[in-house]
Amino acid sequence: MRAIHMVSPRLSSCLRPIFFGRFSSSPRDFVFPLSNPRRFYCAAAAAENVDSGGGGGRSGSVTAPPMMEDFQKIDVNPPKGTRDFSPEDMRLRNWLFQHFKEVSRLFGFEEVDFPVLESEALFIRKAGEEIRDQLYCFEDRGNRRVALRPELTPSLARLVIQKGKSVSLPLKWFAVGQCWRYERMTRGRRREHYQWNMDIIGVSEVAAEAELISSIVTFFKRIGITASDVGFKVSSRKVLQEMLRSYGVPENLFGKVCIVIDKIEKIPVEEIKKELRLTGISEEAIEQLLEVLSIKSLEKLEDVLGGAGEAIADLKQLFSLAEKFGYSEWIQFDASVVRGLAYYTGIVFEGFDRGGKLRAICGGGRYDRLLSTFGGDDIPACGFGFGDAVIVELIKEKGLLPELKQEVENIVCALDKDLQGAAATVATILRDKGHTVDLVLEIKPLKWVFKRAARVNAARLVLVGKTEWEEGSVSVKILSSGEQYKVKLHDLD
Amino acid sequence: MRAIHMVSPRLSSCLRPIFFGRFSSSPRDFVFPLSNPRRFYCAAAAAENVDSGGGGGRSGSVTAPPMMEDFQKIDVNPPKGTRDFSPEDMRLRNWLFQHFKEVSRLFGFEEVDFPVLESEALFIRKAGEEIRDQLYCFEDRGNRRVALRPELTPSLARLVIQKGKSVSLPLKWFAVGQCWRYERMTRGRRREHYQWNMDIIGVSEVAAEAELISSIVTFFKRIGITASDVGFKVSSRKVLQEMLRSYGVPENLFGKVCIVIDKIEKIPVEEIKKELRLTGISEEAIEQLLEVLSIKSLEKLEDVLGGAGEAIADLKQLFSLAEKFGYSEWIQFDASVVRGLAYYTGIVFEGFDRGGKLRAICGGGRYDRLLSTFGGDDIPACGFGFGDAVIVELIKEKGLLPELKQEVENIVCALDKDLQGAAATVATILRDKGHTVDLVLEIKPLKWVFKRAARVNAARLVLVGKTEWEEGSVSVKILSSGEQYKVKLHDLD
Repeated sequence: MRAIHMVSPRLSSCLRPIFFGRFSSSPRDFVFPLSNPRRFYCAAAAAENVDSGGGGGRSGSVTAPPMMEDFQKIDVNPPKGTRDFSPEDMRLRNWLFQHFKEVSRLFGFEEVDFPVLESEALFIRKAGEEIRDQLYCFEDRGNRRVALRPELTPSLARLVIQKGKSVSLPLKWFAVGQCWRYERMTRGRRREHYQWNMDIIGVSEVAAEAELISSIVTFFKRIGITASDVGFKVSSRKVLQEMLRSYGVPENLFGKVCIVIDKIEKIPVEEIKKELRLTGISEEAIEQLLEVLSIKSLEKLEDVLGGAGEAIADLKQLFSLAEKFGYSEWIQFDASVVRGLAYYTGIVFEGFDRGGKLRAICGGGRYDRLLSTFGGDDIPACGFGFGDAVIVELIKEKGLLPELKQEVENIVCALDKDLQGAAATVATILRDKGHTVDLVLEIKPLKWVFKRAARVNAARLVLVGKTEWEEGSVSVKILSSGEQYKVKLHDLD
Repeated sequence: MRAIHMVSPRLSSCLRPIFFGRFSSSPRDFVFPLSNPRRFYCAAAAAENVDSGGGGGRSGSVTAPPMMEDFQKIDVNPPKGTRDFSPEDMRLRNWLFQHFKEVSRLFGFEEVDFPVLESEALFIRKAGEEIRDQLYCFEDRGNRRVALRPELTPSLARLVIQKGKSVSLPLKWFAVGQCWRYERMTRGRRREHYQWNMDIIGVSEVAAEAELISSIVTFFKRIGITASDVGFKVSSRKVLQEMLRSYGVPENLFGKVCIVIDKIEKIPVEEIKKELRLTGISEEAIEQLLEVLSIKSLEKLEDVLGGAGEAIADLKQLFSLAEKFGYSEWIQFDASVVRGLAYYTGIVFEGFDRGGKLRAICGGGRYDRLLSTFGGDDIPACGFGFGDAVIVELIKEKGLLPELKQEVENIVCALDKDLQGAAATVATILRDKGHTVDLVLEIKPLKWVFKRAARVNAARLVLVGKTEWEEGSVSVKILSSGEQYKVKLHDLD
């Protein structure tokens, strides 16, 4: 395997020195280990940093000897918090995404996508969201502030404003895209995940939210998850809005209050109260707010808020539609659900694991005012995000992980070197007929070929041997039964 | 549509001022237009830059009034050089990627993926490649040098080293991933594209390269491109290697020389000579090199190099296999093809438009020494990259762009508000049977519904009216024929 010694750094020092006059060849310049023993890089790489742009590149100008130019021991792991997808991982990802996509299409949604890199301004909201604190942002080589998207909705809103009157409402769009975050303190949490989004733009009726939840229920059912595994907690931000209004709290504090409330199950209630006090809300309002947030029945909420407001009307409508869609047993009212994004304005919901072990599986709601925060005209809208992490934990726990194997119909193999071309012809014939073929590209012992056939789960082994080939035939072995026969090339199918 | 005035910045200034004591509300702080009239952002966003991390964040600490907190007029376009994918764009992308993936599977390849963000060190090679100069790199919030990947091969090599002996060779892997570059002077060129890669790891025989080209030919044929539209120019870097060796040029200059040679059709020959002189190659060698690079026939090359070297043997083998695979008419020898990546070591090839108008459609080759440049043990390998840009230009030019429309089987619509729930039930019945349904979520005039049905290319319109519903039926209209009938709910299929 080392037949070609072209740029080997270890050999090159024997070469004529005439070319190296202007370079130092001190071994000190070669490789310097960093604190992490798996992470090395060479002086050449460090020196290059100078002109590589980006914000705050640190200076340094060690000139490396050219014989080291292409040698650097790299970290074989993907960057911290990111994933490689080996074939096994990719089969699971494809299986999951396929379900996301098929369900979306079943509901008449069209797929869209946006750049993974967006202008930072698109994600900056001052409500104190976790998503904002963890923005994976940086300055590009042209000194623009950009960010790897933490979520898809702002990009969707941007595209809707851009399209303006050229599109007919409602839009029903879905996307499956990678989202990023940056936490300084990572406790094994990932910095990227994929998120399935479905959004309905241009429908003010609660039927839109009901349709979105129906699509998630359809997805759960398809992969074997039942109403006894997961549920949806549903509320409306209008509950909070109506309460704050009754206490004279300014409307502009609404987003901030929601973000505080969203932490209610994560931090002690005294902390919540302290943060609410900081927004300027009165002690009485805080106490009342916290009491209302503990309500788990729509009837009790109606007793407190009265029956006239939009919150109650919307929620009643949603529960009525849930029955007609056939997913009543999946949903329940829970006033404590507000979701962690500042832009929601109405119904909010989150999918939760009834076992109580996992974080929220998905979440969404109505965001009728997002477009105007970007300078566009508002259009009623709602949507959800569904990550690829918690659902995989859940299906593992429930024993629902599918068995996904590589599947190749045929393995084609020449029995001697002169027949490699013949095997190529056989592979082409089969592929032209739409059959998948793993062509053995080197001459290998039959034992090896059988082992590979088993590993790729091939159904048939097609052997190209001298005698058969001379009469225009090949040997076919059905691997499940062991049955073996000769077949003419033109009958091969 | 503006029913809920919750965080409207324009209204909020009428609210009680008690909450704004510590903020300036000077109108100067609101919005400041930048030079680009489409790009505005608010003081709130600018102020946030201070703590937003990333290398070189510039300081500034304007405190915005809270009523402006969520208002910022954003640029509705995606960042310079990037794309949104509207439903139409996404249908084309899916169509293209589907062909990439189906062809890869037909050849028995398994899908993999890697992070779009990698350690910068993975892409730094000092051979002067264009890909290196245009690296989209930056410093992350933890002061690590990272880059948006410019290509997929280094990540693949990293994963192969990481997997080590846990995988059985050969590996046949494919990926379709987004790749990035950063050019300071963009002349309408994009900063991202998607690239289809197929790689074979662990086969030293030329049969591997022959198989790769066969898969690209298969792809072309599937989308209607013929051998009179495109071809492959094929050579081997061993041609150059053998020549340089005969002139005593050190092996470590090889990558650099290849990168210079790759520019042969882009910059004047005098420039090429100048750059070659800078590497230290003799005038005589340069002249000889340029003469050999103009050779377009394998026979003539053999006259010059002699028949004993690996270059000639490999190329002969490739042309012989091409015949057996059935794509002889697609390929031709061209000594000037060296490709622009430093790591190729053997056969190199590129797909080109015979019309001569477009840049290379795809390119690839053997890279037997890449793994050791990362500190791993070398394994023979080859692969190709195939971008999503030039191929789309080509199929547009050849009139091969497919007509891809949204396709929804049913549009379901309630005829009055009370029947919205009934329509939801009907939609669920159809979806449970696997039929796609666009459910009309608001009560709309029939004229509107027919217009929407036409736009989504629905086959059937299912109307839920009071009289029919009371007898457990719905009206179905076949939109192509105009045929209309009543059907019982339990017969609906």
